[in-house]
Amino acid sequence: MSKLRVIFHVNETLKWDVALANITNLLRDVGDAGAEVLVLSNGPSVEAYADGEKMKKIEELAGRGVKFLACRNSLKNLCASGTLCLNEENLPEYIGVVPAGVTELIRRQAEGFAYIKP
Amino acid sequence: MSKLRVIFHVNETLKWDVALANITNLLRDVGDAGAEVLVLSNGPSVEAYADGEKMKKIEELAGRGVKFLACRNSLKNLCASGTLCLNEENLPEYIGVVPAGVTELIRRQAEGFAYIKP
Amino acid sequence: MSKLRVIFHVNETLKWDVALANITNLLRDVGDAGAEVLVLSNGPSVEAYADGEKMKKIEELAGRGVKFLACRNSLKNLCASGTLCLNEENLPEYIGVVPAGVTELIRRQAEGFAYIKP
Repeated sequence: MSKLRVIFHVNETLKWDVALANITNLLRDVGDAGAEVLVLSNGPSVEAYADGEKMKKIEELAGRGVKFLACRNSLKNLCASGTLCLNEENLPEYIGVVPAGVTELIRRQAEGFAYIKP
Repeated sequence: MSKLRVIFHVNETLKWDVALANITNLLRDVGDAGAEVLVLSNGPSVEAYADGEKMKKIEELAGRGVKFLACRNSLKNLCASGTLCLNEENLPEYIGVVPAGVTELIRRQAEGFAYIKP
Repeated sequence: MSKLRVIFHVNETLKWDVALANITNLLRDVGDAGAEVLVLSNGPSVEAYADGEKMKKIEELAGRGVKFLACRNSLKNLCASGTLCLNEENLPEYIGVVPAGVTELIRRQAEGFAYIKP
């Protein structure tokens, strides 16, 4: 059977724990090599990429092949709001940055990725 | 026109009423034979399968061809949390159990089912 | 590259601002001609079509080619609840009405549109 492909959409910080548990369950079910998993974070939820507790789990899943993405617009808005400024260059190498998160969500679905909103 | 195919994703108990109303509207619009409808419940929302009020509506829709699914991981977590232990064998026959709800959501989309998150 | 196609699903009034910001970011990223964008509103969120502030932004995006849709069931429910009666004939011409919002969400995905739930 071919690899399952999916993009998870996280746009609220409160949804991260559900998303990370979903992905852990998925990999337990089909094996790390059984799925190509992307996680697109936009809106205020990009703040998780500076959250020590969440980053432990994110790093572990990244080590198992999950790709994490941040929306550049959202990083800029978070900084402009005075909440948190995350410098792209300082993000761990396993977190990619895309110009607009929604474009990524559309392109990936057009390529055949399933969409899941935890 | 070929049958419409859709999988509804319910992961919060509060979203059940919206999901069941959505499905009722869909079937009124295209007819019971016009759509193949799956409902995948994961997370704490699986508790609905022990909720008398919700089960009345679920049973009625199941009688009209809608297939309801529960995530086994979520049933286990609900039991482990001390909230509610639902024995798989005691679930009505119109509720199926899948090992991991997210896998089902991905597989069905890969088969051409639309995804709706109420 | 062919046009990106997407249907945004809004079913809670509180999600409108996120949805409209998402669409603005998308069009800035790919250009107004680079995407075919639909917005399907159902549930109580259809009340936005009578909200002056939101309608300013909706009208602006409609002028750039975004198509806005309302679920007729939801318009009827909103009126029946005593909250607000929106006469279909009085809606601006850039807002379409469909018999059942969920049917539209399924049909469009079957046609190849991506689905995004803000």
